[in-house]
Amino acid sequence: MNRLILENIVRQALLEDLQQGDITSEAIFDQNFPAKAVFLAKANGVLAGSPVVDEIFRQLDKEITCLAALADGAELKPGTEIAIWQGPIKSLLAGERTALNFLQRLSGIATQTAELVKLTREFGLKIVDTRKTTPGLRMLEKYAVRMGGGFNHRYNLADAVLIKDNHIAACGSITAAVEKARRYIPHTMTIEVETENQAQVLEALAIRADIIMLDNMSVNEMTEMVQLIRRRAIVEASGNIDERTIKEIAATGVDIISVGSLTHSVKALDISLEIKKV
Amino acid sequence: MNRLILENIVRQALLEDLQQGDITSEAIFDQNFPAKAVFLAKANGVLAGSPVVDEIFRQLDKEITCLAALADGAELKPGTEIAIWQGPIKSLLAGERTALNFLQRLSGIATQTAELVKLTREFGLKIVDTRKTTPGLRMLEKYAVRMGGGFNHRYNLADAVLIKDNHIAACGSITAAVEKARRYIPHTMTIEVETENQAQVLEALAIRADIIMLDNMSVNEMTEMVQLIRRRAIVEASGNIDERTIKEIAATGVDIISVGSLTHSVKALDISLEIKKV
Amino acid sequence: MNRLILENIVRQALLEDLQQGDITSEAIFDQNFPAKAVFLAKANGVLAGSPVVDEIFRQLDKEITCLAALADGAELKPGTEIAIWQGPIKSLLAGERTALNFLQRLSGIATQTAELVKLTREFGLKIVDTRKTTPGLRMLEKYAVRMGGGFNHRYNLADAVLIKDNHIAACGSITAAVEKARRYIPHTMTIEVETENQAQVLEALAIRADIIMLDNMSVNEMTEMVQLIRRRAIVEASGNIDERTIKEIAATGVDIISVGSLTHSVKALDISLEIKKV
Amino acid sequence: MNRLILENIVRQALLEDLQQGDITSEAIFDQNFPAKAVFLAKANGVLAGSPVVDEIFRQLDKEITCLAALADGAELKPGTEIAIWQGPIKSLLAGERTALNFLQRLSGIATQTAELVKLTREFGLKIVDTRKTTPGLRMLEKYAVRMGGGFNHRYNLADAVLIKDNHIAACGSITAAVEKARRYIPHTMTIEVETENQAQVLEALAIRADIIMLDNMSVNEMTEMVQLIRRRAIVEASGNIDERTIKEIAATGVDIISVGSLTHSVKALDISLEIKKV
Amino acid sequence: MNRLILENIVRQALLEDLQQGDITSEAIFDQNFPAKAVFLAKANGVLAGSPVVDEIFRQLDKEITCLAALADGAELKPGTEIAIWQGPIKSLLAGERTALNFLQRLSGIATQTAELVKLTREFGLKIVDTRKTTPGLRMLEKYAVRMGGGFNHRYNLADAVLIKDNHIAACGSITAAVEKARRYIPHTMTIEVETENQAQVLEALAIRADIIMLDNMSVNEMTEMVQLIRRRAIVEASGNIDERTIKEIAATGVDIISVGSLTHSVKALDISLEIKKV
Amino acid sequence: MNRLILENIVRQALLEDLQQGDITSEAIFDQNFPAKAVFLAKANGVLAGSPVVDEIFRQLDKEITCLAALADGAELKPGTEIAIWQGPIKSLLAGERTALNFLQRLSGIATQTAELVKLTREFGLKIVDTRKTTPGLRMLEKYAVRMGGGFNHRYNLADAVLIKDNHIAACGSITAAVEKARRYIPHTMTIEVETENQAQVLEALAIRADIIMLDNMSVNEMTEMVQLIRRRAIVEASGNIDERTIKEIAATGVDIISVGSLTHSVKALDISLEIKKV
Repeated sequence: MNRLILENIVRQALLEDLQQGDITSEAIFDQNFPAKAVFLAKANGVLAGSPVVDEIFRQLDKEITCLAALADGAELKPGTEIAIWQGPIKSLLAGERTALNFLQRLSGIATQTAELVKLTREFGLKIVDTRKTTPGLRMLEKYAVRMGGGFNHRYNLADAVLIKDNHIAACGSITAAVEKARRYIPHTMTIEVETENQAQVLEALAIRADIIMLDNMSVNEMTEMVQLIRRRAIVEASGNIDERTIKEIAATGVDIISVGSLTHSVKALDISLEIKKV
Repeated sequence: MNRLILENIVRQALLEDLQQGDITSEAIFDQNFPAKAVFLAKANGVLAGSPVVDEIFRQLDKEITCLAALADGAELKPGTEIAIWQGPIKSLLAGERTALNFLQRLSGIATQTAELVKLTREFGLKIVDTRKTTPGLRMLEKYAVRMGGGFNHRYNLADAVLIKDNHIAACGSITAAVEKARRYIPHTMTIEVETENQAQVLEALAIRADIIMLDNMSVNEMTEMVQLIRRRAIVEASGNIDERTIKEIAATGVDIISVGSLTHSVKALDISLEIKKV
Repeated sequence: MNRLILENIVRQALLEDLQQGDITSEAIFDQNFPAKAVFLAKANGVLAGSPVVDEIFRQLDKEITCLAALADGAELKPGTEIAIWQGPIKSLLAGERTALNFLQRLSGIATQTAELVKLTREFGLKIVDTRKTTPGLRMLEKYAVRMGGGFNHRYNLADAVLIKDNHIAACGSITAAVEKARRYIPHTMTIEVETENQAQVLEALAIRADIIMLDNMSVNEMTEMVQLIRRRAIVEASGNIDERTIKEIAATGVDIISVGSLTHSVKALDISLEIKKV
Repeated sequence: MNRLILENIVRQALLEDLQQGDITSEAIFDQNFPAKAVFLAKANGVLAGSPVVDEIFRQLDKEITCLAALADGAELKPGTEIAIWQGPIKSLLAGERTALNFLQRLSGIATQTAELVKLTREFGLKIVDTRKTTPGLRMLEKYAVRMGGGFNHRYNLADAVLIKDNHIAACGSITAAVEKARRYIPHTMTIEVETENQAQVLEALAIRADIIMLDNMSVNEMTEMVQLIRRRAIVEASGNIDERTIKEIAATGVDIISVGSLTHSVKALDISLEIKKV
Repeated sequence: MNRLILENIVRQALLEDLQQGDITSEAIFDQNFPAKAVFLAKANGVLAGSPVVDEIFRQLDKEITCLAALADGAELKPGTEIAIWQGPIKSLLAGERTALNFLQRLSGIATQTAELVKLTREFGLKIVDTRKTTPGLRMLEKYAVRMGGGFNHRYNLADAVLIKDNHIAACGSITAAVEKARRYIPHTMTIEVETENQAQVLEALAIRADIIMLDNMSVNEMTEMVQLIRRRAIVEASGNIDERTIKEIAATGVDIISVGSLTHSVKALDISLEIKKV
Repeated sequence: MNRLILENIVRQALLEDLQQGDITSEAIFDQNFPAKAVFLAKANGVLAGSPVVDEIFRQLDKEITCLAALADGAELKPGTEIAIWQGPIKSLLAGERTALNFLQRLSGIATQTAELVKLTREFGLKIVDTRKTTPGLRMLEKYAVRMGGGFNHRYNLADAVLIKDNHIAACGSITAAVEKARRYIPHTMTIEVETENQAQVLEALAIRADIIMLDNMSVNEMTEMVQLIRRRAIVEASGNIDERTIKEIAATGVDIISVGSLTHSVKALDISLEIKKV
């Protein structure tokens, strides 16, 4: 994770929520007395987002300090104390909602990832994310996937070649597209091809694609394709995968399962903040 | 909605996804030939996010034009054509993922809101959002709530006074907090008090809070409080409300039901993009 | 006040005045020896802007420290020492003009506000500002008004509804405009109506506007309108009010007097900076 | 004037005033029907700020067009139509306050400058501004001075050397400071020295300063100094100069009179905006 | 290339060179009459940077148009007309220096690259750049390398794994470092190892590094290593390579030659701008 | 140098090189153990860029400290230890390439400048730079010229008037252009005229230009022109000057020699970074 990008994200979030200032705190507190803020889990899950909370309080007030904190990746149960921060009450309250918004979302992603990882542990494959992330938060959401035991797919459109149905149609064939790509791209980069049937898999294999994605295939088809490919390319399963279907997909022998819902349909993990006097 | 803020959000999103450029398109297309991009609904729901798509394609390429588009708020079914855009294929593909990420998320919010609005239509109350929004996207998410027939709660901490348990504890009493706030705030601003029991409701009523929030009360308690308040303040129900519980809460006679999950736990609406030759 | 916005304002100001660097200091000082900078009032007034000076020196040089400083709101006389800062001479000189530009302007606003507040003290009303602020400095100027004992009107166009002559004409009637607004806005928001005569006041009253502005009315008219309204709405007097007319306007019984010149025609308070060797 | 800087200033100003959007217009206008906005002078003065208004409407809505407009520098009387713009009513109203805030301020500066220029016309000297400008608006304020017939002093600390009392004290002598500066600065740059008495003037003259500032001297002293200098340096009068004193100062024979109040204590010129149906 | 990044780079460059405006043009031109600007090559080389010139004039003035322009990659001779632009003279002059600074630098890079590509054409390998680019201009400089017929190495530290001497020392061994990397990175990413001797090459080969860099080896050593590796990894030669040594390095059979001086020691290509009346 | 601008430049450079993070370090280092980074010169030259390195490490990690460092302007030989930094290894490696890219470029400029200064030392003139700098890095490159013993020409187009061939042609004559400029510009500003022959020199002299540039004249012509001007204006030689021709140009008696290649064709000075365990 790059802290400079985190700084920008947090700054933007605080400006959005605080604008010209927290009118409630300004109005009702004569003194900016010290207090403690305790982050508490209220559900089972996996923690992600601690560096974001650090950065939030760092930007708000140099006098806020962290008294205790679990590391990201920690397992949470209802009642688990995630972190304790101390500082001027106005500054703690100013950051409360922003901190919770990040922490709940990122822990939600880590939790959902961890569940899928657990369901497929025996198969020795990787659960990976997609580019279906929340605009502006990709770095953090992909980090949360890692905290949940998942892995990352390519980060952006500049990262690796992924030839999809639209590209194939427009280029004429998988072969044509892969050959053109290979002549153009850096020698450090790989080429993935999205396939929908056996003919496409064979074509991708023949032109030596580094990665072959099996898109929206049935479990039976995937099993066949894995056997056909015989480790000559990395095999990625993709398409509307969830906790009910993932186990039988994993059993097909694919190397990678990519899951868009990890980041596009996040259920926030329930976390609360309690302010205590000191 | 302020288009200048939208511009910043979209720009950030495109930079995040495109970085130094879409290597796949650069590599495989010799020509930047014209194509059509059709956004298709693949599930039932309510559309939100069209101005974001406009802005995405406007920033990417002046030659992209919109041939047809539904307005936000439109009902969608599987197969509904949401919009058709035409322009150079590389530019359409460059915006595909970003457009879908926004459109699916915002339509997901509008859809979820519309469901709750429908469930409570007979009661003449308002479904409102909270500040539990995705950092950086609050303007858009609150817009999506409106497109689904909901209303907005305060936009940020500078917008209105909301005195919560932490404020009450730190200030000594609801009375003290409201009196201080009233002496400080602009005459255009209102004061809301979060209450957890009858004593607090009575205190908030006595000090003439504009809005009284009933936080995490049972349906019976809420019914009693509504009768107690007798329209002398706006009454807002809050706390872990979902599609199973919302109807009986609405029946208590509250004016407002605020629902955090509208924005903190969004299920993306399934929408796809098809590229066609022209 | 939100320190993150202050940071941006100060950064912009320093870049504007310093550009590639202070050529005079660079050229003539071989050493960056320590010195003291003393801010001195040269006229009677009220201080505002100290947090801006803090931020200026914080951004310029971590080695600059504040030895003594009056709090904003303090009364100044010619010769009052406002603050004493110590640090490397080049850094103190680099911030001199920017610090004075802010301090003189904001103290000018606080001073002018305090004069109007004093003139109307006996009437128990509020002197408020408007949106006629210097572009880019609204947060600071509204802060300075508070330091002078005044209050703030709405902060921006998103903050509250204010229905003016142009809106009424375009909408057909006050009644139509207020009804539309009430159906749309957050329940935390209020509605103000600008009126020019008794008929409009009665209409605004009938539709239960929260605030009624009496715009450019004569003192007699205002007295009548206050009696007509009988506390059923907050009453705001507006329009070319200055130190000569404010007292008789206050005597009409209005709750609020808004004064555009507080921020649109500021007379800088005379403050100087003296550099001393240490 | 650099349009790229103007863009940034205007964007910042619009974001400040509009935030998440103009709630009044959004609420009460179902249609965004076309209207005319007429800027009207309500006092005598000199116009400045037209390019800012252009930029405001350009950023807000591509459909807004200018039907007629006076050029900056034009003389205004009560009732003069400054400009007429046409476009969607919501967009015109969104820009109203920001446009007026700029136009009133900048025209106020141009008007005040023009008065001083007129008072001193017969003496063939230049009225110039200072760096006592509003933070963030320097480019525009210095432009307004030119529109009023004045000239600009240096733009920022990087622009030219100006050796003041603090520099002289810290460097030991005018001679030392000027010699050091001359050895360091670009050959395109000039050196000005601030003097308070005859000894300093003589020293500055001896070391061949390009410009000698007579700071806070009496009219008699200034007359003597001008005769002493005999055109061997440009002579600038400075220090608390206003419309009552400027004429006798001009008569001393100085080349330049710099006036801080041109920008630090601006009286907004009264200008209004009327919306008309089309 | 991503036009949004280009926009930022050009905006920054224009602000740097123009600041508050081009004082010369403002002073001497009463009219902003139309003129032509002709870019002329004054040396042999390869053109790169045309999209930057487009963007410069687009940002400066909507009235500037391109009458004729060579495409990037075109061969230039002394006297070749690169492009002809027409528009208001002040705007053309405002962009002159910035346009030339980009064009000369980028064409310098393309020219230097083309020379090395030509020298090694017979060997069927790729000339690639490094991360030794000018801070802030990496996207453009890597684009210029492609225009000269070269290829790009990884774009940034997030793009691909490159294990160098410092990493090996800190990790204990090449084997340990590669194994750790393989367990962590996205499946779309590759691993390159920098080697200095045969033992390291063998270790990198054994652990199946995708790319093996031969760093600062002699021509004889490189020949041996290429034979040792036998196409089981991509082989990259690196280290102080220039036009005198590149041919014999190419003859060793390596796949890739990376050349830092392509971007860290650029000789600007001589290009001039002539303004003509129209 | 203005540290606020430096901050922006460095931030941009780090974001460019680091993006979402250094994947190699993240992958292979379990611990972020402390290490030393030693900058070593590998060639003869003059150091420039130390404040940039400071800023890079300051932004990356608060725990990095400088153990030893030469000052800019220091002479370097192969093996000279330029600076030693200590801190967490991941942070040191994250800054390595960016630090070297700046240091090598700026030291390259300082070195080249110092060579020309040395060659012309006996003539008591100034070697100055031009505006032919790398877009975005002008402040740093002009600083590097000073570190090499050179001086700066004008910083940007707003800094001073420079009337070139295009201006003269468009204005009609040198006389017309200079007269217009003198009536418009601040009294602190100077006027330079570019001349190509004796007639132009005489005209520039007659209209009292402050500086006369002799552009692309032969050595003989320059000698004549210097004698003609007889110190009535500063004389600047310009046009394709390099280490072979500079000495005889200096002998002509000009005051200033401006050299574009100082910044437009920089040869990076060879500097390396060694990481050591602590």
